Amino acid sequence: MTSASTSAATRADGRSTDQLRDVTITRGWSQQAEGSALIEFGNTRVLCTASFTAGVPRWLKGEGTGWVTAEYAMLPRATNTRNGRESVKGKIGGRTHEISRLIGRSLRSVIDTKALGENTIVLDCDVLQADGGTRTAAITGAYVALADAIAWAKSQKLIKANATVLTDSVAAISVGIIDGTPMLDLPYVEDVRAETDMNVVVTGSGDFVEVQGTAEGAPFNRTELDALLDLALVGTTELARIQRETLGA
Amino acid sequence: MTSASTSAATRADGRSTDQLRDVTITRGWSQQAEGSALIEFGNTRVLCTASFTAGVPRWLKGEGTGWVTAEYAMLPRATNTRNGRESVKGKIGGRTHEISRLIGRSLRSVIDTKALGENTIVLDCDVLQADGGTRTAAITGAYVALADAIAWAKSQKLIKANATVLTDSVAAISVGIIDGTPMLDLPYVEDVRAETDMNVVVTGSGDFVEVQGTAEGAPFNRTELDALLDLALVGTTELARIQRETLGA
Amino acid sequence: MTSASTSAATRADGRSTDQLRDVTITRGWSQQAEGSALIEFGNTRVLCTASFTAGVPRWLKGEGTGWVTAEYAMLPRATNTRNGRESVKGKIGGRTHEISRLIGRSLRSVIDTKALGENTIVLDCDVLQADGGTRTAAITGAYVALADAIAWAKSQKLIKANATVLTDSVAAISVGIIDGTPMLDLPYVEDVRAETDMNVVVTGSGDFVEVQGTAEGAPFNRTELDALLDLALVGTTELARIQRETLGA
Amino acid sequence: MTSASTSAATRADGRSTDQLRDVTITRGWSQQAEGSALIEFGNTRVLCTASFTAGVPRWLKGEGTGWVTAEYAMLPRATNTRNGRESVKGKIGGRTHEISRLIGRSLRSVIDTKALGENTIVLDCDVLQADGGTRTAAITGAYVALADAIAWAKSQKLIKANATVLTDSVAAISVGIIDGTPMLDLPYVEDVRAETDMNVVVTGSGDFVEVQGTAEGAPFNRTELDALLDLALVGTTELARIQRETLGA
Amino acid sequence: MTSASTSAATRADGRSTDQLRDVTITRGWSQQAEGSALIEFGNTRVLCTASFTAGVPRWLKGEGTGWVTAEYAMLPRATNTRNGRESVKGKIGGRTHEISRLIGRSLRSVIDTKALGENTIVLDCDVLQADGGTRTAAITGAYVALADAIAWAKSQKLIKANATVLTDSVAAISVGIIDGTPMLDLPYVEDVRAETDMNVVVTGSGDFVEVQGTAEGAPFNRTELDALLDLALVGTTELARIQRETLGA
Amino acid sequence: MTSASTSAATRADGRSTDQLRDVTITRGWSQQAEGSALIEFGNTRVLCTASFTAGVPRWLKGEGTGWVTAEYAMLPRATNTRNGRESVKGKIGGRTHEISRLIGRSLRSVIDTKALGENTIVLDCDVLQADGGTRTAAITGAYVALADAIAWAKSQKLIKANATVLTDSVAAISVGIIDGTPMLDLPYVEDVRAETDMNVVVTGSGDFVEVQGTAEGAPFNRTELDALLDLALVGTTELARIQRETLGA
Repeated sequence: MTSASTSAATRADGRSTDQLRDVTITRGWSQQAEGSALIEFGNTRVLCTASFTAGVPRWLKGEGTGWVTAEYAMLPRATNTRNGRESVKGKIGGRTHEISRLIGRSLRSVIDTKALGENTIVLDCDVLQADGGTRTAAITGAYVALADAIAWAKSQKLIKANATVLTDSVAAISVGIIDGTPMLDLPYVEDVRAETDMNVVVTGSGDFVEVQGTAEGAPFNRTELDALLDLALVGTTELARIQRETLGA
Repeated sequence: MTSASTSAATRADGRSTDQLRDVTITRGWSQQAEGSALIEFGNTRVLCTASFTAGVPRWLKGEGTGWVTAEYAMLPRATNTRNGRESVKGKIGGRTHEISRLIGRSLRSVIDTKALGENTIVLDCDVLQADGGTRTAAITGAYVALADAIAWAKSQKLIKANATVLTDSVAAISVGIIDGTPMLDLPYVEDVRAETDMNVVVTGSGDFVEVQGTAEGAPFNRTELDALLDLALVGTTELARIQRETLGA
Repeated sequence: MTSASTSAATRADGRSTDQLRDVTITRGWSQQAEGSALIEFGNTRVLCTASFTAGVPRWLKGEGTGWVTAEYAMLPRATNTRNGRESVKGKIGGRTHEISRLIGRSLRSVIDTKALGENTIVLDCDVLQADGGTRTAAITGAYVALADAIAWAKSQKLIKANATVLTDSVAAISVGIIDGTPMLDLPYVEDVRAETDMNVVVTGSGDFVEVQGTAEGAPFNRTELDALLDLALVGTTELARIQRETLGA
Repeated sequence: MTSASTSAATRADGRSTDQLRDVTITRGWSQQAEGSALIEFGNTRVLCTASFTAGVPRWLKGEGTGWVTAEYAMLPRATNTRNGRESVKGKIGGRTHEISRLIGRSLRSVIDTKALGENTIVLDCDVLQADGGTRTAAITGAYVALADAIAWAKSQKLIKANATVLTDSVAAISVGIIDGTPMLDLPYVEDVRAETDMNVVVTGSGDFVEVQGTAEGAPFNRTELDALLDLALVGTTELARIQRETLGA
Repeated sequence: MTSASTSAATRADGRSTDQLRDVTITRGWSQQAEGSALIEFGNTRVLCTASFTAGVPRWLKGEGTGWVTAEYAMLPRATNTRNGRESVKGKIGGRTHEISRLIGRSLRSVIDTKALGENTIVLDCDVLQADGGTRTAAITGAYVALADAIAWAKSQKLIKANATVLTDSVAAISVGIIDGTPMLDLPYVEDVRAETDMNVVVTGSGDFVEVQGTAEGAPFNRTELDALLDLALVGTTELARIQRETLGA
Repeated sequence: MTSASTSAATRADGRSTDQLRDVTITRGWSQQAEGSALIEFGNTRVLCTASFTAGVPRWLKGEGTGWVTAEYAMLPRATNTRNGRESVKGKIGGRTHEISRLIGRSLRSVIDTKALGENTIVLDCDVLQADGGTRTAAITGAYVALADAIAWAKSQKLIKANATVLTDSVAAISVGIIDGTPMLDLPYVEDVRAETDMNVVVTGSGDFVEVQGTAEGAPFNRTELDALLDLALVGTTELARIQRETLGA
């Protein structure tokens, strides 16, 4: 990838511009959930659990289809300074809502809800430590938890063993332009300096599920947009590989 | 634009795939606000007001910069069936939060907050009637209200007459893929059928402020993404022209 | 009416003391609702929609009677300075509650709920621009929306065509005493100066549905009360005429 | 009073139509508040306390005027069947808001806020047992608590001893039309049957502070309105006498 | 009791260290509830009502067992300075939650829920005046209200006449260490000075239901803990006697 | 300890009745907080962070004393079945409130707030996995986080190096009676079967900070209470040792 390869390791953590941080996925971290994964993108740590329950919300009953949804949250001291709890404030902030919805849509994009049957899976993504890229780590980790919850449900005969509930894998990564250079997988120090910030959600087959690009500083042109998309695909391809390895697939 | 011109008018409302709905902007619809516009994209009607107040929120005091923010909401019967009021529910939904934040970021992208000085402008975008594209109509109309509020503030000597507070104009449009065909400016009947749905916010100079693409059905590939971006630019170029005309600029 | 006729046009807008502001009712302003009206009392503009749904709330099921209720709200910049949204505050203020209840009671007073059958009509009255008298404009406009929703339900055979669901029409007006003079239909500049302020809701036949008089300054005596009631009836008689004309009845 | 005297004691509790229930005011029931009264209208019991604090809310600072406000609430089992607590529901209902505002306005009508100085008095009216007329009992009892709090503040030299803070007394009563007969001071069993229900707030001098009449069943005509007002004045005259006696004035 | 008898009446109100304040229980204070008691521990006054309803919450249906729960609250001016209402704040504070739960657990400890059958009893304990020990007075008074509600239900044949629904009585008292001396039944002035504060809930047979001891100042040792428990039993024995007398048992 | 030693290992996990589960404290688990510890009591895992900030809440300003407070929460899938988030419900439950307050009081009991100076420390205890004893693990882990935050503040010269801010250590454990046998440190399966459940908070010197005993089934007598307290002290003595080891003190 040209745009990235030309800028040799100038990043604070010594990475090249098209290099992911160390990614670790601890599968089955929780003993309570039907599926779970503690995912780390460098210092970012997100605990993802998948809760499987028979039945669907009232508005879906009798449709013969399942439901997958997600909730994202951050511990108050996941960040460098403490943020008040949303439970104490009595309401959920816009950012939390936005990310929860993004995670839910992303995971639903690889689910065949007919094959899932009238069952519900809730993905909880709780950020234990935040250092940039929490929403993309959450999506990537939630996929692993989801896959395990589905395997569990098959083992319990709650879903037919031969049903193809998951149509593909899904992973996500952030990219951004910093001092004019497109870079992959931004930690917090880079994220706050980025002129443009983009989160890209991609299936294992390399198709796009979500593209969310935002000019934090100056608007961006088509060339920059293309460079960012190229870079994102480098990252999601690698993440898909790690997911496969983790799941032993 | 190739991708669109080949598909002749097959849309329910007789438009070609790269054609906007009728756009009307009634500038100064409200007598109370410092700037206002009732914008219509076909049957979608959004009342945009800009409220100018001297001073900034506490966390910005003494920084010498201004603040622009936005709130989006829908009347309960803007839609085909009635939705309960968020004030009655006691909380704001995720969709409302998400759109309010998008409008705010979009308008801030063309504001020089130093030139604005320690003043605050709140943009209220209330959907009176909804038929698809409410968030893009809101951004496009809010720009007109914002421009008028800034002109008013200059006339009142609250901002220096020669300050360049607005660095550009900004407009937004939705695009989507329906039955494999990319289409511009989706009304509700098209929006619900779209496999991929994208909202694109573009400056008057043609640079991107936001690109938010979502696969509602199947994931989309790079070619489809490119076709959608092309189509969006056709729309925002036309909207920028209408904004200039409306403002007599 | 003596009390009013003696004080020739001394009002800021040139009206005589027993004269209404210009009243405009745009029937069917909304394409989404079963009935709707944009009503204007001078610069006051209220969008009234009537939403008809089959069925009644749980506590009324099986009683064979229908339900009519109302919700009133104001856009944040309907007024001269911006008011925070109740949805953002997370609760509805006392004034909003009070007016919503008043509108609901007023409309129910002309409804035969047995004839309505087990159906529900919700009246939404949203103030787009406020210049005094918003609650009385809301009641007057909501009646038109309600009448159209009932006509629609009859045309859809959801209500028997020959049922007398509406037993009368209903309209409302404000009156007040300003510098000792009783005046009809107060705009904001008069309302804030009124010693006594009264809202009167009257049927088409001239009977009272609600009388709400409040001493804002000095208490009022029986003679003043009588003069205000006389004046109110002048206004509601005229409004009933305009409602009939609008509905082509 | 003609309309009432003709209907000899036909009421369930043996009263004539223009007769109050037994009224008891226990002055100083609370040892904590600066002024307090437990008022009983028959079985209706309301504990009224007046809390005096130096200083005013922020928006009134430096104006040289005081502030009087009120809050009304009902214990969950004040009524025949239990009502959930508003604190548990997390929001205050419309009826509570409406009555709190009415009590506040009524008491403010007899206060000279300049003479009160920059001090605040909060009147809490908590219904311990409800049997109709709770809001009118609350206003009548709150006046006694208010008078005592002002006397206390004078004794503490927080208000000048010779200041005329209270310009008059104020009391309130309900009236209604039941089976065509106007009646004074309705207990619950009468209240639910009333075609028209009116709450009237009157000063010691006999002038009106509030008139709130509502047609619960059929609309009411001018003659009925007049009869109700006559009856209300019979009641408030008697209540003013009892207030004077209680306060030893 | 040694630890207390040695410290002769040194308390502000002249009591000995092991002496209760005057305790008064007015049974049947409320005419609305199935059982009620106004209980006074000195100047602390709590109105306790028991509301009996047939049926149980959804999660208990079909289990053949009843449900007893409690809600505690304080009037805003029960205390020396006014506290804002929890209904106005829109949420219930931690202290209120904690005490409501304690009362509920305490009363359930003497209920045979099988014998109660599928019925629900809600105990409302509203503090009308607070001078220390409100939670212990609430438990002690709520028992009387509960006993009467059960008697009422038997008289109405909602519970079998020979069912032993109450397995024992229950009462509670506070104890604390002040200047090194353990004392029984602390009024507010003592409570704020206590180094250690303990609330003890005891059955009529003298067994413990709850022991909640808290070091407000220095931690306490085993000897002090024992002295406090001894003292508490003196108090609850006396309260059990008063409860029996009140109920004429 | 006699009461426990007689009942040889009859517990599901093979422990003797006076034996703690495996306790692990991972000091400094979070890189963001000034002090942190991931504490495990068997399968119970609680992440404790201590956030140090200069300054105190408004109501403490100028008093020369610091403030320590705590917030407890549980991830939705910490438990065997998922619990809805309190942030989504919009309010904090009674249990959460109660435990947060308990943790705060416990930690404050070993803090000299004068020595802390006008600084605030917030302890966040988030249960990542729950298997009984979460509140006692939280207190025990929070002490370690607190000690490290104070050490950090001294190293940053925000507190004087020689100030004795911590007057002692503090730890907590649960005890209960199961089938008549007192047992130490109950996992979930034992906790739900316990007739009596007690949480005991003890300083490093062996004095009590809190004793909270609750009869879940039958009330308990003095002998049982004494046996439970003995057992608790065995546990807290061992926990104090582990805390000292962890902190290398």
